[in-house]
Amino acid sequence: MQTKFLLAESDIPRQWYNILPDLPWPPPPPIHPATHEPVGPEALAPIFPMALIQQEVSTDRYIDIPEEVLDIYRLWRPSPLQRAHRLERALDTPAHIYYKWEGVSPAGSHKPNTAVAQAYYNKQEGVRCLTTETGAGQWGSALAMGCAFFGLELKVYMVKVSYQQKPYRRILMETWGAKVVPSPSRDTQAGRNVLAQDPDSPGALGVAISEAVEDAVGREDTKYSLGSVLNHVLLHQTVVGQEAMQQMEMAGEYPDVIIGCVGGGSNYAGLALPFMKDKLAGRSKSRFIAVEPESCPSITRGEYVYDFGDIAEQTPLLKMHTLGHTFIPPGIHAGGLRYHGMAPIISQLCHEGVMEAKAYHQTKAFAAAIQFAQTEGIVSAPETSHAIRCAIDEALAAREAGEKRVILFNHSGHGLLDLAAYEAFLAGKLEDYAYPAEKVREAMTHVPKV
Amino acid sequence: MQTKFLLAESDIPRQWYNILPDLPWPPPPPIHPATHEPVGPEALAPIFPMALIQQEVSTDRYIDIPEEVLDIYRLWRPSPLQRAHRLERALDTPAHIYYKWEGVSPAGSHKPNTAVAQAYYNKQEGVRCLTTETGAGQWGSALAMGCAFFGLELKVYMVKVSYQQKPYRRILMETWGAKVVPSPSRDTQAGRNVLAQDPDSPGALGVAISEAVEDAVGREDTKYSLGSVLNHVLLHQTVVGQEAMQQMEMAGEYPDVIIGCVGGGSNYAGLALPFMKDKLAGRSKSRFIAVEPESCPSITRGEYVYDFGDIAEQTPLLKMHTLGHTFIPPGIHAGGLRYHGMAPIISQLCHEGVMEAKAYHQTKAFAAAIQFAQTEGIVSAPETSHAIRCAIDEALAAREAGEKRVILFNHSGHGLLDLAAYEAFLAGKLEDYAYPAEKVREAMTHVPKV
Repeated sequence: MQTKFLLAESDIPRQWYNILPDLPWPPPPPIHPATHEPVGPEALAPIFPMALIQQEVSTDRYIDIPEEVLDIYRLWRPSPLQRAHRLERALDTPAHIYYKWEGVSPAGSHKPNTAVAQAYYNKQEGVRCLTTETGAGQWGSALAMGCAFFGLELKVYMVKVSYQQKPYRRILMETWGAKVVPSPSRDTQAGRNVLAQDPDSPGALGVAISEAVEDAVGREDTKYSLGSVLNHVLLHQTVVGQEAMQQMEMAGEYPDVIIGCVGGGSNYAGLALPFMKDKLAGRSKSRFIAVEPESCPSITRGEYVYDFGDIAEQTPLLKMHTLGHTFIPPGIHAGGLRYHGMAPIISQLCHEGVMEAKAYHQTKAFAAAIQFAQTEGIVSAPETSHAIRCAIDEALAAREAGEKRVILFNHSGHGLLDLAAYEAFLAGKLEDYAYPAEKVREAMTHVPKV
Repeated sequence: MQTKFLLAESDIPRQWYNILPDLPWPPPPPIHPATHEPVGPEALAPIFPMALIQQEVSTDRYIDIPEEVLDIYRLWRPSPLQRAHRLERALDTPAHIYYKWEGVSPAGSHKPNTAVAQAYYNKQEGVRCLTTETGAGQWGSALAMGCAFFGLELKVYMVKVSYQQKPYRRILMETWGAKVVPSPSRDTQAGRNVLAQDPDSPGALGVAISEAVEDAVGREDTKYSLGSVLNHVLLHQTVVGQEAMQQMEMAGEYPDVIIGCVGGGSNYAGLALPFMKDKLAGRSKSRFIAVEPESCPSITRGEYVYDFGDIAEQTPLLKMHTLGHTFIPPGIHAGGLRYHGMAPIISQLCHEGVMEAKAYHQTKAFAAAIQFAQTEGIVSAPETSHAIRCAIDEALAAREAGEKRVILFNHSGHGLLDLAAYEAFLAGKLEDYAYPAEKVREAMTHVPKV
């Protein structure tokens, strides 16, 4: 029985897939917070290079991947698609469980798929330095690697509490040559303002974004880079799903259920959108399940409205599922899923009913991750554990129903730098956080009326 | 230009390669410390299952890999062979540099190739529990994973200073279900003896081995497991070199130089021995370079004599390169290379002049690892960094000589759980240790006269 479905290097997709022209509903445009008019590309020019802004609004179905980016993808792509035979046997299920294994990248997750592309386009347009923020550190380390490949400087504003608790992630970024500062820092006005009010502030992703954007806008040769949410980021991740489609064909099956965890939405979109093309064209009836944490459930509990992407209200308004841009989620271990909003593309697909969402508490996710580690070997990122939980539950439901079900999920990354969370779980010290209904209600009052 | 040479799952070798029948010189047998007579299989029966003892002395050229072991190899094998184009360009060298990338296993190194096989054979013979020791933690975590797959209990005696300094490695073992105790412990007489003399003892690999062996011998359903040095361990690693031979053929080249780091010798033997078969048969003139740390240089500075495998003098005497079994190496970050002896097979090949050895200080190794991370992406284990240093120096020598040179090295694992060492290096705080000539001279006085 075959376990791994491996493509040749020549099978790496040579184009990214852009779902915008295939959506049956016009995507609501980003709008200006004051005028409520659609914003043009020029509004984003101070922070992003023009090539990425054009991809953000492109209506071309396929966009060529530059040879220089492919050259780097080849370091770890194509990634394997694996059939989880051993997990299936442990679950005694008739379901077939497949996972796309993105942890083979040197940074250990799917994030380099866009980090490398973003570094490339910035380099092409003469940018010398990038800034970004990072919470858990997955994105910061992927971009550090991307910048190393193209000789770009990188300054990462790392949420101070992570900076202190996750020294390995910081060292990883420094090994690839990035400069990492704890946020709030004294390097920006935004940081200094926070420190003036609270010198011991532990920081927050929203503050770190404000610092990174301010830093980029204030320097001629510097731009800002974002690791999820936006259309061009999802676009770059579609190499994942395009490879998976070829590999499912090798396996002779088509997924009935397609699963992924969602924070900003990019890893799941990467896997799901190429399959969604089939569903939108009436060629499949697959179910699509986006899995989020119970403590930050933007799709299952949030509203589909225009909101800011950041706490400091620096971005245009995006139509998306949101818990309110001032909402600060509880400190769950899946740092990559702690975002108040959701990618507009994923939000719209959920809103239109072609995609569903489900939320889990973190202890249930970790229990699934332990079972996965002991059957399939891989120790998973806390974020990915949410997808594994859902895949296992689908397989158990198939057993109950006595039906074969082909399940595909995106295994977005390993958890080797997240072992402190495993220790807490194994020691029975991991808490679940109830859905913070009151805090969300309060945050939603700050969402602008459009 | 192709970067990765990928085999299909059906190309995973179905047999291990045993070099013993191809050696032109009879391998010196293990002998009893008192009688100096060759020891028979029965001497090892209290600690190893009979199948492994038979492999240890087998003269069959090929030994079938059990289907149950192949079934687990398929989780990450075949591993990629990669051409380091980006490193070559950075070095401006006409050399072609290839590396076999074993860090794709869930434990992050080559160690599971033997851990899974050892767990399987123990399970087959009704063993319920294994014991082992671990220093840096690579071996302990690989065996923890192997035991999880076969439902075996595992107790790991982890050198206390590592237990305290490397909590992530410990948690990784616990995630796969192993029990980890700091050594010296109160669970064994050997441990209690050490603690009686020094309650604050930081431990040493020799003590941990003594504890693990005592524990296994004292329990009916328990055996002991070793991660390097012995013939059967090297045997299991030959999947690495057999795959690499197929992949070099795909690349249309044959290596002029074959490189690997050596502690006990198993990762390098795994890559090298299938190619050595060609050299011994007169079909190639490749150079073979085993790379060791300057602070523990058993081949380059030790003697080729009979010595104990462990400090507590519990093992038979093995003919090997040794610095003396009572020698305790300085605390370099490449914990996997801190062993006083060397695999008898590797020792004999060096002694007979068909293999050479070279030693490096750790700061030179880390400098190479940083260059590798910034060009090829992968952050390497401190052990592997020694092989990278040697590969880079060979490539630079090829540039000096103005000649094409095909270089192949074993990339035995990633360094994501060793980032503290990178931090020390980047901060300029990493020390080199001079070769401890005086301590080695003293230790060599304890080597038995045979």
